[in-house]
Order: sequence, then C-alpha cells, then structure tokens
Amino acid sequence: MPFKQYLLTPGPTPVPPRIALAMAQALPHHRSPEFEKVLAECREGLKWLFGTRQEVLIQSSSGTGALEAALANLCRSGDEILYVNGGRFGERWGSIARAYGLRAHEIAVPWGDAVDPAAVRDALNRAPGAVAVCVQASESSTGVAHPIRELAEVTRQSGACLVVDAVSALGAMPLPMDEWGIDVLLTASQKALMLPPGLAFGAASPKAWRRIDDGNLPRFYFDWRAEVVAQRRGQALWTPAISLILGLAEVLRWLHEEGLEAVFARHDRLARATRAAMKALGLSIFAKRPVPSLTTVNCPVDGEALIKLIRENYGVTLAGGQEAARGKILRIAHLGYADDFDVVVAVAAIERGLSDLGYRKTPFGTGVGAALAELGSAG
Amino acid sequence: MPFKQYLLTPGPTPVPPRIALAMAQALPHHRSPEFEKVLAECREGLKWLFGTRQEVLIQSSSGTGALEAALANLCRSGDEILYVNGGRFGERWGSIARAYGLRAHEIAVPWGDAVDPAAVRDALNRAPGAVAVCVQASESSTGVAHPIRELAEVTRQSGACLVVDAVSALGAMPLPMDEWGIDVLLTASQKALMLPPGLAFGAASPKAWRRIDDGNLPRFYFDWRAEVVAQRRGQALWTPAISLILGLAEVLRWLHEEGLEAVFARHDRLARATRAAMKALGLSIFAKRPVPSLTTVNCPVDGEALIKLIRENYGVTLAGGQEAARGKILRIAHLGYADDFDVVVAVAAIERGLSDLGYRKTPFGTGVGAALAELGSAG
Repeated sequence: MPFKQYLLTPGPTPVPPRIALAMAQALPHHRSPEFEKVLAECREGLKWLFGTRQEVLIQSSSGTGALEAALANLCRSGDEILYVNGGRFGERWGSIARAYGLRAHEIAVPWGDAVDPAAVRDALNRAPGAVAVCVQASESSTGVAHPIRELAEVTRQSGACLVVDAVSALGAMPLPMDEWGIDVLLTASQKALMLPPGLAFGAASPKAWRRIDDGNLPRFYFDWRAEVVAQRRGQALWTPAISLILGLAEVLRWLHEEGLEAVFARHDRLARATRAAMKALGLSIFAKRPVPSLTTVNCPVDGEALIKLIRENYGVTLAGGQEAARGKILRIAHLGYADDFDVVVAVAAIERGLSDLGYRKTPFGTGVGAALAELGSAG
Repeated sequence: MPFKQYLLTPGPTPVPPRIALAMAQALPHHRSPEFEKVLAECREGLKWLFGTRQEVLIQSSSGTGALEAALANLCRSGDEILYVNGGRFGERWGSIARAYGLRAHEIAVPWGDAVDPAAVRDALNRAPGAVAVCVQASESSTGVAHPIRELAEVTRQSGACLVVDAVSALGAMPLPMDEWGIDVLLTASQKALMLPPGLAFGAASPKAWRRIDDGNLPRFYFDWRAEVVAQRRGQALWTPAISLILGLAEVLRWLHEEGLEAVFARHDRLARATRAAMKALGLSIFAKRPVPSLTTVNCPVDGEALIKLIRENYGVTLAGGQEAARGKILRIAHLGYADDFDVVVAVAAIERGLSDLGYRKTPFGTGVGAALAELGSAG
C-alpha cells in the first residue's frame, strides 16, 4: 500500500477534516431544540444552494433514492415519461420508471454526447401527455453536461416537468432552479457537498408540486407530501442521518464563506487545467460538452490496467469507464474538496502510469506543465 | 445550557468515541478492494448478530425504510397482512401497508400490553391467506417486548411470514433468527449498534425469499432481489453510507469482544436496576412485559414538564410519551453505549426533577440506592 491515498473519483469525494470533525460531535437527539436549530440552518442554506424559494427536502438515502423519490412522487400509475439516456445514470431513469410500471420513452444519446434540446422538443411533440422529462445535469459515466437551461425552456412550454439529476453537478456548476425553471432538482451528499454518502436532496417547483399532490404511486419513506409538512414544522419526517446533517451545516457555512461564484470558478479552473494537461499529453477529451466536475479522456492504453497500476503503486484513485466505455476512458474528478494541487497530483500520476505501461510521447512534466500554465498565478 | 449532556433516549443513542473515530477516517471508495474488505467483515458480523445463515442486507436509510422494504418486497398487490398495533411503531405497519394498497388487518393491543399469541393465531385463522404477520420485538413507544419466540411458533404453521421490527431490540436482547424461525428481521444503526442513524438492516428466511422473488410491488432503491445479488458479489447495490459502515465494522468487532451473551446480560441488568429504582421512588412500570433496552414508567407529574426541566436544568435527555401516552409516561433508555452509571445518572436526574416539581415521597438517593443494590458488586 502506498503511504498516502488520494481519492479523485466523481463520488465519493474526500471529506475535509473540518467536516469530519463536525460529524464526530456528540449527537443531539433529532427531536431536540438543538437539532432543530441545525436543521433550520441547513434548510436555509440548501435553498440558497439550489437557488429556490421552495423547500429542499432532505432524505437519508443515496442519490438513487432521490431519483426514485422524484418519479414515485411526481407520477400516476401508467404515466408516460421521457428520459435522456446518454450514459449509465441516464439508463437508471428507465429502470426506475419500469419498476413503477410507467411508460418510459428513451431519448437515446451516444455516450460522450450531450442531448440536443431539439430532440427533446420532438419527443415531447410525439408524447404530448408525458408528465416528466428526466435528465442528468452531469452524466458521471461520460463527463457530459446536458444543456439544462435550454431543456428548461423546451419543457416550460409543455405539461411535462423537467426533472434534473444534479448529483455530481449541484455545487460545482450553476443550476439556479427557480431562475432557469427547473421543476425537480436532485442531488446527494458525497459529491460537491464534500460529505460521506448517505443524504440526498430534492426540491420541486409549484408545477411539480401540483403533480406530487395528485400522485397515486406507492410512497412512504420517500413521501415528499409528508416530508415537506414535517420540514416546514422544523423537523425531519423520519429519524435522519444526524451526523451527516451536522456535517452538512458546516459544509453550507463553508460554501457560503467561499461564495458560490468562487466555488463554480474553482471547479471550472480545475477542469480547464485538467483538459489542457491531457491534451498536452496527446490524449483527447471524451466528453463533447464537458462538465466542470469531471474530465473524461480517451485512454491510449488499457484503462483498467492503468487505473489499477496508479492506485496500487501511487495511491491515487481515479475512476475508469463503465459498461460500453470500460477500459476505454479515464474519469478524473476535480469535485468538492479539490484544489489546484489535486489536479497536479492527478496529472502527475497519469504521466507516471502511462509511462510505466510503455506510453510516453512527451517528456515527464509536460502534462503538469500545461496544467500549471492554465491554472495561472494567484496574482 | 448545562455543562455536560447525557443522551438517554431509545434512539439515537450515544456514539462511543472509538466508533466516532472509526467514522472520521478518510473514506475509501465504495468500489475499492479496501472497502470490499470492510463490507465482507460487516456481512459476517451481521449474520452472527442476527443469528442467521442468510445474507443480512444493508440499506442506507432509517429503520422506517427497512419496514417499508420488508412489505414492498414480500407482498403482491392486494395481499392481506396482519399487524400487531400496540403502539406508535405498530401503527406504522398499517400506514405502510395502506400506502402500498395492501389489505392490512390490525391486531389491536392496548398501549403497555404485549400481544397474546392466541390473538395472532385467531387472526390467522380468520385471514388464512395473510402473507405476513408484522410485529415489533420492542415497541419503543411503550417499552413492551412482544413475545417473538411464541409468535414464530404460531406463524410457522401458517403460510404467513413473521416480520419483526427489531429496531430498538436487536443487539439488546436475544432474537436468534434461524433458531426461532423469524422470517424477516429488521433493525437500524442508531440503537443497540451505537451508530448514528442512517443505516438499516434486513434479513429474510427461505420462506420469505420465495415470496420476495415472486413479489410484484414497485421497488427499486429498496429492491432486496438486486441488493442480495450485489452483496453476494461483495458490493453494495447503491453508493452506501460509507462512513457509517466503517463505524459498523468497528461496532461489530466491539460486540464480538464483549460477547453477545454479555451484551444481553448488561442490558438486562440495567433494566432491572432502573425498574427497581423507579419502584423505590413509588412509581409504577408502564410496560406489562418490559424490554431490556428501555424502561417506561407512569409519571406522577406532567411528563412533558419533567422532561423539559431535566433536559434544560440538568443536561439529561430522556424521552416522554407519544400520542395517547403524551405527558403520562417517562421513557428511560439503557440501550447501546450504556453502563451502570448511566442508570445512576438517569435515576438521579429523575429524583431531582420530581423534587423540583414538588413530588418527593422518599429521601434523595432512594432511587439511586435501589439501583445500586440491584446492580450488585463486580465481585
């Protein structure tokens, strides 16, 4: 085992010591005035983060639980939905919809591409009764950012709600819910929010709430109608993951201190530097419309072997491709608790790993140098 | 605010520093060999704790999520179930069943009483097609232990599965799943397991698995068919609450060191001492068949006022009655990370609080003295 470990995957992301300490506090009871104060702070902070006046519901589950909650709350049995499938998380919409007996129409997008808003408009014209258009803000399996703002304009004119999985996007890039007209916005704790996995979040527009109140699918643990009533009374509906919520309060304070614009600029800067480094090494970017949280590159050697070597020999954990992209791409996260030197470490590890596997077209330091040039100076 | 805080509620329970430290470790990725080792250790430890050869499924949710998962997996639409309703958690079975469109027959039990196994036998005779009998091992709202072993004998002869909510019981009292013939056994992290809330656990007998495989209710995040396949491959189905699972591994090691029999004996000793103390103060025990994790007593003053006073003035958090029992009972937990001196603190705080509210029939120290006498000596 290498001496130090570097976790550079698109979730979970490293938990900063300040947050780990907040979570190691003695637990208050979840029905105590002390905890209600923490929850009130989180509710305000989440509204700010989501850019919404709606209540942001806190679930104790993974992000998948939030995706399921969105459909289970929004739909009635037999409803039609549309979903953008441009990767592994896009596929998941279809699986959830089928589990609930919904009629799910796929808008297929090749891995690495972003959806064309015109394709969604056409699909809505073919299925005018569709109640939801489901899409990822950041498709973590490909590193692609789908054009959420444009999709919101397309769906606004229809009866369908735009449901956005922003699990690896919210807090890394702008997604102002109310301003853009996103109907359901979902995220989870272990990405830009720098927490361990175990919390998920969802907010719904008035248009979505009308459907939620009218829904008839089975829902209990994920029942947003009951959850919103509880939260407005200052409580969680079920016993919440208290330690993670203590961490969340601290995270929201931190993001507030840094400022959302600065957080987004940081992610964008790290993404630009990583892309510049990869290009300097002669690698091409896989995502046609890359997210700022994750860089995906076509791997010139066996990607699985490269990732294993880098993890085992250098202690740096990157992510590889999934399903069709297995072995073919590298996924380098710069998400959450990530700074300039995390990019330097990632690029240096890739330079070493590629060289170890016999691929070296440029002198050592070429990738790191390009990253540093792009990162610029503090002054 | 008092200087020190004592959390003596039936969940969440205090997290020992050793466990808090384990959870504050740097997170491994959930698809890494390092995490798979932790998960393998947890899977073995949970089988030992449950007393089963079946896989114990780990969910990232509260205990309510496990109750819902049990019914959503076990049943087909329109199925009949029976449920014992002797308190707030008994009621919950009915709410979940109704949310899924099941026909739920209540076996009503007065708050404070345990169910009579003959009543369950009669109910099964009246509803021979019932697929499940749902009950609490420990009804946390009343402090009652329902007779699980006897109920298993009753249901064994029927087509119904015995589904046991052991959220505040497992790890505090014997519930050997395979030996007793429990079909579905459920628990959560924030009780005897001394962890923060956020994990829930469920295991199913072969009889239950036949129904689960044949079920047709919507289930995705809580789909046990998919979860068991993932766990047998050494993985979690969805991104799990990694930090809590790191804590779980440490908890299971600890319980193993103490020994299950010793853990049960400790809870039983604390319960006997608490009951002796309450009786010495002239209070009567509310639960007819008390659990070893929780003592409920009839409160001779306004229970809400007493709990508030004890919390605000002395820093000791006890639980009060819920719904029909609000203001009428005290619930004193001795669950999880609890020892003899936690009982001493609880009793001393109650002696002080009662006196502050004008109720004092015995000299100070009478309750504590009775507790100490019952706790006995180490030799």
